[in-house]
Amino acid sequence: MRAEVIESLKQIVGEDWVLTSLDQTKGYLYDETEELMRPEAAEDSIVVKPGTTEEIAEIMKYANKELIPVVPRGGGTGLCGGAIPTETSIILSDERLNKIIEIDEENLMATCEAGVTLADLLEKLREYDNLFFPIHPGDEGAHIGGMVVENAGGAKAVRHGIMRNHVKGLEVVLPTGEIVNLGGKLIKNNSGLDLLHLMIGSEGILGIVTKATLKLYPESKYSGTLLISFDNRRDAIGVVPKILQSGIIPLAIEYMERDIALESAAHIGEKWPAEEGSVDVIVMLSENKEDDLYEKSEVIAELCEEHNAVYTMIAETTKEQRSILAVRSNVYTAVVHDAADALDMAVPVASIADFMNDIFALAEKYGARTPSVGHAGDGNIHNFIMRENGERPSYFDELKEAMYKTAVKYGGTITAEHGIGKTRVSNLAIQLSQKEIELIKGIKKVFDPNGILNPGTIVNKR
Amino acid sequence: MRAEVIESLKQIVGEDWVLTSLDQTKGYLYDETEELMRPEAAEDSIVVKPGTTEEIAEIMKYANKELIPVVPRGGGTGLCGGAIPTETSIILSDERLNKIIEIDEENLMATCEAGVTLADLLEKLREYDNLFFPIHPGDEGAHIGGMVVENAGGAKAVRHGIMRNHVKGLEVVLPTGEIVNLGGKLIKNNSGLDLLHLMIGSEGILGIVTKATLKLYPESKYSGTLLISFDNRRDAIGVVPKILQSGIIPLAIEYMERDIALESAAHIGEKWPAEEGSVDVIVMLSENKEDDLYEKSEVIAELCEEHNAVYTMIAETTKEQRSILAVRSNVYTAVVHDAADALDMAVPVASIADFMNDIFALAEKYGARTPSVGHAGDGNIHNFIMRENGERPSYFDELKEAMYKTAVKYGGTITAEHGIGKTRVSNLAIQLSQKEIELIKGIKKVFDPNGILNPGTIVNKR
Repeated sequence: MRAEVIESLKQIVGEDWVLTSLDQTKGYLYDETEELMRPEAAEDSIVVKPGTTEEIAEIMKYANKELIPVVPRGGGTGLCGGAIPTETSIILSDERLNKIIEIDEENLMATCEAGVTLADLLEKLREYDNLFFPIHPGDEGAHIGGMVVENAGGAKAVRHGIMRNHVKGLEVVLPTGEIVNLGGKLIKNNSGLDLLHLMIGSEGILGIVTKATLKLYPESKYSGTLLISFDNRRDAIGVVPKILQSGIIPLAIEYMERDIALESAAHIGEKWPAEEGSVDVIVMLSENKEDDLYEKSEVIAELCEEHNAVYTMIAETTKEQRSILAVRSNVYTAVVHDAADALDMAVPVASIADFMNDIFALAEKYGARTPSVGHAGDGNIHNFIMRENGERPSYFDELKEAMYKTAVKYGGTITAEHGIGKTRVSNLAIQLSQKEIELIKGIKKVFDPNGILNPGTIVNKR
Repeated sequence: MRAEVIESLKQIVGEDWVLTSLDQTKGYLYDETEELMRPEAAEDSIVVKPGTTEEIAEIMKYANKELIPVVPRGGGTGLCGGAIPTETSIILSDERLNKIIEIDEENLMATCEAGVTLADLLEKLREYDNLFFPIHPGDEGAHIGGMVVENAGGAKAVRHGIMRNHVKGLEVVLPTGEIVNLGGKLIKNNSGLDLLHLMIGSEGILGIVTKATLKLYPESKYSGTLLISFDNRRDAIGVVPKILQSGIIPLAIEYMERDIALESAAHIGEKWPAEEGSVDVIVMLSENKEDDLYEKSEVIAELCEEHNAVYTMIAETTKEQRSILAVRSNVYTAVVHDAADALDMAVPVASIADFMNDIFALAEKYGARTPSVGHAGDGNIHNFIMRENGERPSYFDELKEAMYKTAVKYGGTITAEHGIGKTRVSNLAIQLSQKEIELIKGIKKVFDPNGILNPGTIVNKR
């Protein structure tokens, strides 16, 4: 990076908050997609850590004038390369914007700076009697700002949907340096094209989120977990729509192929309780009354037995529940070290079984191993494509593209919750028409006429 | 309208589906904002009733080439002039797109053509055992397409939110004539800037919705209604956050000033049960178990008594419930004949009482009568500004602007659910910054470079 740029940025944020040596910056050149991104071309990037929204506005005005790419970065826990530079850039870290501004118990809203971690927010909420924030993308190191622009999902989408449903207000610095405030502590707001909802999920190409107002909810008092095993995928997944039609709305309905459950259990030294069957479904319940918990557990267990369940366990102790959920949530870390990619497709819930059968047939055709796990209650399955002898297999791109086309064939999406980022840009045309991509590029240009903010994310630079 | 235009449109949709005489078209020149719009300038408009998406695409290609304004129109039940022409236009009615394409019980989704009325959809759902669609803007003549582009709200937003939360897929004809399919039967979808959510609430300026896929839910079996009266507004509204914090999520929490309740009751020949107090709160509950209904009713009644309620009635019979709800839902028809405008502001729930006190102080200052009613559970209050001696009062614009500024002062919105349409364009700058308005105009231009689709809606034409 040119010396005059470094000097100008130091004048804005202060000497201490501009990192220039690769020693200091290399931790900012990666996210969780190490395998797919090659950020060597961006090693000359610098990291800037502004302390206020106004400083960010100054940085953007300067970068926009000088035409220097800016990559906004939150917790670096993303799974699509959204926060990674691919050329010499200003990496704008929000880590100093780490203040929880307000927990508003009357309106059930939290207002946070963008760099607040999910862990910080959840810890703060524990100080209150009865407050709950439902979105949990797995890694609590995620920053609120990143969760907003990546429209984070997670397991609890069955009951609570996605980040979008809970973001009510945003402060945003535009690529051209203006500060705008979108939305507020409002449940309904129809004043103009909805720039708030356009910003949610925009992966840092339209603006830098600096503050967010999030909806909170009263917390349910009792939670329970069921583990139900089946002999085959069709039975296991066939039960999911039945549960959803019963009127019971679980917190989560998760699905695991047995091989991946055993791998994860071994990884963390737990014993997997189910021996019968080959596919597991985990149902999480959360209720205000203990009776409801028992009653709903019974209804679900019966439904599963009618659907050929071969093993049913209603985990009653906290210890049992924790063990099952730990196995589920450690799948990623257990498998990822040997995975070439973690896919993130979703299809309509009723199509999961057919879709998965097609996916496994494809894998077999290529001789690939694709352990699978996912949020069955919302149709979102994560398929891993594994390495062979430590290397990305030769069929990797071809298989991935075939899998993406399969998802789209079932009316699905190539990315349910991880985002397009930089790693899926070349696949976007499988999902969207040329006209849609043209509209997205047009909108990008309205916000960022010089294309300086997070270039190469969602769409190619030109 | 020029004869060659009429001829070309007849070639696209067929002779019978182009209406040209004012006798036939005048019903299409108004919506529910009669008082505010003066569509005389548009009397030379014609009405076209295409039968397919492809015909709409043809019409748009033609209109875009010839630079003729097109005004998309659903049920005409809107409250912001969104579906009304203000110059010689093609009024594109979706009334022939009236097919419910699919009720998908497995995925809990309904797919409808845009011209299906809410009444039709609700009637269809009654054929099923247990299916529920939660959005109800009051008038069941509303078309699904209109409900999507106006992001309809209604009373049940307390539990179910707004239209946006339940629209999963859309087929849209763009102003330039291309057909795009956005989203699908998906709970999670992060593939690119979210054009689906940009289209929801876009008031017909970005495209014409031709089909929508909507989320359905299992229906709760038992419903109950509480009527609670208070001596003053602050007590009545102060109880709302307490109910929401209790962990009970009612279907609706409505608020009525007594004068308007009595006026509505008289209008439909019902007797209003409460004599004590001057402000009424109506709580609607909907539960799967009868016990829950009773238990939650008791909890709410106790909470209200702690908050100085002077009268509490738990309506047990269907007849009692219907009577109370009929009075609430007929407020609009009871009052509107003598109203100069129905406002639609919202503020954070905990600020309603202060906001309303400011509103009534403003009204007093101008000597205005502003009967008020609203969805207290989501902060959305409808204030009527009444006529004086049958005329719009001289202070009308000034008072309305002062009220809008008051909403914004409390972090609120000038329109919670009715939309900006054409009647609030001149007020938009009270809510949004110039930069936001500039962004909205920029997005509009990306979709509609020639500005032919619903011009003058949300933003001025240039």
